[in-house]
Amino acid sequence: MFKDPTKQKIGIIGGGQLGKMMILEAKKMNFYIIILDPTPNCPAHSIADEHIVADFDDEQAIRELADKSDVITYEFEHIGVDVLKKLEEEGYRIYPTVKSLEIIQNKYQQKKVLLSNNIPVPDFISVSSIEDIGNAGEKFAYPMMLKSCTGGYDGKGNSIIKNQDMIEHAYQSLGAGSLPLMIERFVPFTKEISILACRGINGEIAVYPVAENDHQDSILIETRVPAEISDVLKEDAISLAHQVMEVFEGVGIFCIEMFVTEDEELLINEIAPRPHNSGHYTIEGAVTSQFEQHIRAITGLPLGETTLLRPAVMRNILGEGQQGKAIVEGMIEASRESALKFHIYGKEISKPKRKMGHFTVTGDSLEEAVKKAEEASKLIKIVGSSD
Amino acid sequence: MFKDPTKQKIGIIGGGQLGKMMILEAKKMNFYIIILDPTPNCPAHSIADEHIVADFDDEQAIRELADKSDVITYEFEHIGVDVLKKLEEEGYRIYPTVKSLEIIQNKYQQKKVLLSNNIPVPDFISVSSIEDIGNAGEKFAYPMMLKSCTGGYDGKGNSIIKNQDMIEHAYQSLGAGSLPLMIERFVPFTKEISILACRGINGEIAVYPVAENDHQDSILIETRVPAEISDVLKEDAISLAHQVMEVFEGVGIFCIEMFVTEDEELLINEIAPRPHNSGHYTIEGAVTSQFEQHIRAITGLPLGETTLLRPAVMRNILGEGQQGKAIVEGMIEASRESALKFHIYGKEISKPKRKMGHFTVTGDSLEEAVKKAEEASKLIKIVGSSD
Repeated sequence: MFKDPTKQKIGIIGGGQLGKMMILEAKKMNFYIIILDPTPNCPAHSIADEHIVADFDDEQAIRELADKSDVITYEFEHIGVDVLKKLEEEGYRIYPTVKSLEIIQNKYQQKKVLLSNNIPVPDFISVSSIEDIGNAGEKFAYPMMLKSCTGGYDGKGNSIIKNQDMIEHAYQSLGAGSLPLMIERFVPFTKEISILACRGINGEIAVYPVAENDHQDSILIETRVPAEISDVLKEDAISLAHQVMEVFEGVGIFCIEMFVTEDEELLINEIAPRPHNSGHYTIEGAVTSQFEQHIRAITGLPLGETTLLRPAVMRNILGEGQQGKAIVEGMIEASRESALKFHIYGKEISKPKRKMGHFTVTGDSLEEAVKKAEEASKLIKIVGSSD
Repeated sequence: MFKDPTKQKIGIIGGGQLGKMMILEAKKMNFYIIILDPTPNCPAHSIADEHIVADFDDEQAIRELADKSDVITYEFEHIGVDVLKKLEEEGYRIYPTVKSLEIIQNKYQQKKVLLSNNIPVPDFISVSSIEDIGNAGEKFAYPMMLKSCTGGYDGKGNSIIKNQDMIEHAYQSLGAGSLPLMIERFVPFTKEISILACRGINGEIAVYPVAENDHQDSILIETRVPAEISDVLKEDAISLAHQVMEVFEGVGIFCIEMFVTEDEELLINEIAPRPHNSGHYTIEGAVTSQFEQHIRAITGLPLGETTLLRPAVMRNILGEGQQGKAIVEGMIEASRESALKFHIYGKEISKPKRKMGHFTVTGDSLEEAVKKAEEASKLIKIVGSSD
């Protein structure tokens, strides 16, 4: 290991907003950063030390990244694991480990592993044909979720099936069997919550407070912390997060999304082996941000304190209007709320519903922060220019 | 003004740790940054969008910086004001304004302006010869401080005169009259405190809590917030900070250092028209860091909340041992304290007493944070390598 840990070079696959926010923390401690991303002016570009402009499936480029780096990490889980597996076998350090990535990136495998470790998940079954889906309908009843086992995010790769007549359309929309599919029983949840958890190389685990999330069209809109659930549920959620980290032996930050059911039970919805949108509130709201925590974990530093400093509300800023060069509108007006912090990712092109930025408001009470966030949401906009 | 404020390009004269920490905040909001610094691998280099490698008195280079930038700022006050004045007259935006910089960078002028506005300062007098100093000694009694009016920092440019016999040596050590000099009555202070204050372009002022500082050999060693002084003194200090901001009409963050005298009175020691070492605690300890506040002010954004989130202790990490390539030692051990945050500036060469980094510990009580900071100080070291 490194006697001076700051001398490590960190390679990041992906130079989007998550990569950018990782770098902003890593630079405080003076780490050297190399990113791999196909977009020349991606959000992380201007603050990375080096940028390998290449596609994420470019084996040659990933190898180049590995050769330049002392440790490799990634900002999204949909990476081909074959090349990473080879690199890991050759002795390159990759965190989270390829083993945990491989399981998690396949939702069916992910759920199977969770289930076999007695961690509660919604009922699910693997399907590969319209007939399978029909059988699942009889077993689980409608509505139910058809999910692509790999590659989905922000609701992409999911299709709700409300009755038998929707099966054909759903099946076609998710590739008609060209990708592995699964059916999940629909969970009539009362709340969606998430927990960040981090595991160090030596097995040390740090868990954050429970966050509560709102989605619109399957895209995260708002995260509120602390979650407004009972103390018993909070304890259960934190204990589940610990169990998940033990099961996957992940190194780095993980996000564990859960449903709270009508019976006040918890079911794991999804796990992400990386910093997560619902954890952005930690930059202002927690003693250690999820990005700093991740950098600490993968570079072998002890983990940081996860205490919430003040109630926090995070809201995403999605692209509006037409597609075009990104223009931020209303930032001065919205910034009059003095406890509000903007994060503008620097994506060159705004598209409707693209995640262009977010803001976090902290305050003495959650109620106050929610109100201020709502007001700010009305003022701030990122739109595409017609030029 | 800019409809989309994030489209502004910010030019920073200086690429040291203060410039670096400004950029880390500015990048969150997606500002484009150009630095001017003679050192190719200066701390801010790797995260700036552009770096003009030139001396600080290179008029051509400063003009180039101005042409590339929508607003210019600086991380240190010892800049020749002539070129800045010309640029300001030509319509370039420079914050803090050249007028406030010009007064502040001359300690004698600074004190004169403060005094004429009824802001309490230690007694002082301009001197230009050994005879003048001798006369000052009769007036103020010994010990007294001989100060170079311009260019001093971290105790450089100051010389204590304890008796008549020390006059000649002090006079010689500060340039024997080649630079303007002043004598200040020695203040037998009980505490040194400082306050950050920021003024927006529209005159809005935000003031931070009072911080308490310890120096060793005139170099800041530790800052503790909140300061352990009476509420009355705190109110007085905050009110003085407001007055100072009104007097200089500064735009951007200023640091106002004060002495608390044995009679529980406040005297202004020095003003810095920039983010200040004693304000580093704001990164973790306050809702808005001094660097973010400065960026907000100079780009025309409303100012951010200055509330202290938790008691905070900042300690500098000075170079130790021999001069050489900087090596960080004990970082893993010191990081076991989970509320401790390291800032390693990335200066290539460590020299004894050079400011190489700092760390901040926040905690539920100041007492706890002080103890943890003291422990960490024993573990962390930055030394020069013999390679």
